[in-house]
Amino acid sequence: MAMLDSLRAAYDGKLLVDADDVAPYLTDWRKIWTGAAIAVTLPETVDQVCTLVRWCGQNGVRLVPQGGNTGMSGGATPPAEGLNLVVALTRLNRIRAIDPVNNTMTVDAGVILASVQEAARDAGRYFPLSLAAEGSCTIGGNLATNAGGTAVLRYGNARELCLGLEVVTPTGEVWSGLKGLRKDNSGYDLRDLYIASEGTLGIITGAVLKLYPQPAARLASLVAVADCGAAMGLLEVLRARYADRLTAFELLSRECLELVLRHGHDARDPFGESYPWYILIEFTDFTSEEAARAAIEEALGQAFEDGIVLDAVIAESLAQTQVLWALREGISEAQSAEGPTIKHDIALPISAIAAFMPAAVEAVRVSHPDIRPVLFGHLGDGSLHFNYSPGPGEDKASFMARQAEVNRIVHDLVMAAGGTISAEHGLGVLRRDEADAYRPTAERQLMRSIKQALDPQGIMNPGKLLAL
Amino acid sequence: MAMLDSLRAAYDGKLLVDADDVAPYLTDWRKIWTGAAIAVTLPETVDQVCTLVRWCGQNGVRLVPQGGNTGMSGGATPPAEGLNLVVALTRLNRIRAIDPVNNTMTVDAGVILASVQEAARDAGRYFPLSLAAEGSCTIGGNLATNAGGTAVLRYGNARELCLGLEVVTPTGEVWSGLKGLRKDNSGYDLRDLYIASEGTLGIITGAVLKLYPQPAARLASLVAVADCGAAMGLLEVLRARYADRLTAFELLSRECLELVLRHGHDARDPFGESYPWYILIEFTDFTSEEAARAAIEEALGQAFEDGIVLDAVIAESLAQTQVLWALREGISEAQSAEGPTIKHDIALPISAIAAFMPAAVEAVRVSHPDIRPVLFGHLGDGSLHFNYSPGPGEDKASFMARQAEVNRIVHDLVMAAGGTISAEHGLGVLRRDEADAYRPTAERQLMRSIKQALDPQGIMNPGKLLAL
Repeated sequence: MAMLDSLRAAYDGKLLVDADDVAPYLTDWRKIWTGAAIAVTLPETVDQVCTLVRWCGQNGVRLVPQGGNTGMSGGATPPAEGLNLVVALTRLNRIRAIDPVNNTMTVDAGVILASVQEAARDAGRYFPLSLAAEGSCTIGGNLATNAGGTAVLRYGNARELCLGLEVVTPTGEVWSGLKGLRKDNSGYDLRDLYIASEGTLGIITGAVLKLYPQPAARLASLVAVADCGAAMGLLEVLRARYADRLTAFELLSRECLELVLRHGHDARDPFGESYPWYILIEFTDFTSEEAARAAIEEALGQAFEDGIVLDAVIAESLAQTQVLWALREGISEAQSAEGPTIKHDIALPISAIAAFMPAAVEAVRVSHPDIRPVLFGHLGDGSLHFNYSPGPGEDKASFMARQAEVNRIVHDLVMAAGGTISAEHGLGVLRRDEADAYRPTAERQLMRSIKQALDPQGIMNPGKLLAL
Repeated sequence: MAMLDSLRAAYDGKLLVDADDVAPYLTDWRKIWTGAAIAVTLPETVDQVCTLVRWCGQNGVRLVPQGGNTGMSGGATPPAEGLNLVVALTRLNRIRAIDPVNNTMTVDAGVILASVQEAARDAGRYFPLSLAAEGSCTIGGNLATNAGGTAVLRYGNARELCLGLEVVTPTGEVWSGLKGLRKDNSGYDLRDLYIASEGTLGIITGAVLKLYPQPAARLASLVAVADCGAAMGLLEVLRARYADRLTAFELLSRECLELVLRHGHDARDPFGESYPWYILIEFTDFTSEEAARAAIEEALGQAFEDGIVLDAVIAESLAQTQVLWALREGISEAQSAEGPTIKHDIALPISAIAAFMPAAVEAVRVSHPDIRPVLFGHLGDGSLHFNYSPGPGEDKASFMARQAEVNRIVHDLVMAAGGTISAEHGLGVLRRDEADAYRPTAERQLMRSIKQALDPQGIMNPGKLLAL
């Protein structure tokens, strides 16, 4: 194929073309979308990325950047049609520098998130971004989608953990914004424009990340509550009294716990009886575990007396903290093991959640009484995975046929409550058209102007994020 | 004047045209720049702002948005030439809503920063943005320049304190991005693009601000150290041990303290002898003042034993904390009272500061031995006001003639150390051309593309931020 010869002549890095080699890059993690590409490239240098972008521009080929291919929304899967080239960043994976005094780490985009966490720990620092896919997702993908996860309550999203970026633009040039500064107002904020742009404006190749002091102790507790209103009351009390020491506040329904108990390895119910809702809270302390324990015991003791909390277990050790976390982090996989899923990645003002939850559950129940809500999420951030699994005996085709209607019911209520239908998984192809339908005209026009200005040829990650 | 008649026909809000009325809006706070405008408008509604923008687009008039007119860089002063209209947002000043459960406040752009702080306090919450001009600057101006201030170490810049924006675009439409969400990835990040764009892409008319729990206690200490290296050592120790409870770490030189003692009201030296450098540290605690005091005493006791700290005073009360803060916050005014100033609003990686400071002082001293360094800043953020005052007897003209050369010496060293020449005051006209000269070609091209895409007529705050 003349085109591949041309590509090989321009680019000297690793290139996959055999169907078996290429296949894993053409299907997304959820196995919903499968696309086509003339090849998969695995550049090891930023220069090679520039070469690939220039070659694509010259040859009318569109680029699809890919990190660990763990996305939930199909944002890293090539379209099925057209000439596409996958640019997998996984070999661009050096930790370039760690500056413990400045509390920064400079990394290639392809470094695995868990490796970033580990390198920070080895340097006596803490990198707080944490999510279920951390063992295989890349930091570049985290930034391209502005990943959230479980530490947002205290530390913010991927966006807030990034001080600088390096991006290869659609002309194949490098924009080097790798500054490690806490204050910098020297022009338009290109960094934040590229973050969450899902590879549609350029390819992130490097980043300067914020590091934090390593906590002396992290201590989790699983708390049982009667409803979301009680959960909100507990959040309020804990925030007022413990402020930043409260580092996680995660919600899971009884249904979620049961899924994990059914499908998880060695998972067991920490309580002797069942409760409708659970909150996983985590306290962080910079002096000692005893201080964390004292705070958590005082807080929960008071909440128990006040009738907010029905029951609670407090981890006796870091190992037990991890066991409690595994109950929360195992939900997504357990739900997949149970069968097909309808997912909603929503966020709401925290003040709207207690009313939204029962209203949305009821609105879906009226027209779809048999499907099962699987409700969990990062309640402290107002971010919820408002998911559904099929009812007993329902087959996949019948269940998935409900998806568009269930989406509409849930998302209409989310938008009416001032929320978003895309909290932390990105738009990709999954939410692209729905987001566009909810988007006000002025906003759509602004976003299109930006895409047109920065990628006039339309070669960057076609069909993602924006409906054009 | 036909043009004013046309404006009056289109716009029914407050309008100033008399020279005396208009004058305060045409000169900046530092009285360096004076421009010209066909009128000053003071809209009270977002609709009126839209009307003004549309009228300007139709009549080839450029808009200059202005808040409290407290900027340091001339960003809100109209050019001296051309047809300009000042749009002062100070009457668009309602607090639209406070949501204590969501920890958000929705405000008009023209609300004074101190009023935002006060409204938060009245609702039992804390809005952390704090800077010397807070009694007259507006939150819209703070966002348009991404103001920093004294609480960035813990809470971030204005950017990090804003969840949503409302902007009137150059076509006179409203982009309503007033969401109060902690996670939202539903398209390109328009919010952060407008923040720090200094009114060159649109006019910010409203914002959703983040609120925080009200601390139980804030306690300051003034600490004497021998040099910046010792200061950095103290920062390291405090950060590791006290993490987020350390909420300010401000540097001032002996020269700064002397200026405040000379020009400030009732200011007195808290120490019996003089020291070369001082650090104002502040601890915040969510349980009690005693807890804050215990932490500060323990930290400083250890640092004193380790020889890091030469001397220290700890405030006995909130009133004394404010007295110590007044020494730090009085510097800018005291320096102005002393005579003309050459200002540098720089930031560096924190790890670069201990070497940068003596090197930059020495580099300036070699060619300008008589001018006096007035060095202070937000050391915990790497943000420094590396200023100069004239030497004894030097007149203003002679001193200011040095400005370009002193700028070049300081800024070349800043850029070589990976820093920025514009940390928290914005580029305005003061730093526009210097920033452009240091800007890599790819970055300049990206910024120009964005300006061209969003403001093709070039009517928004002409001549600011970008050299075109």
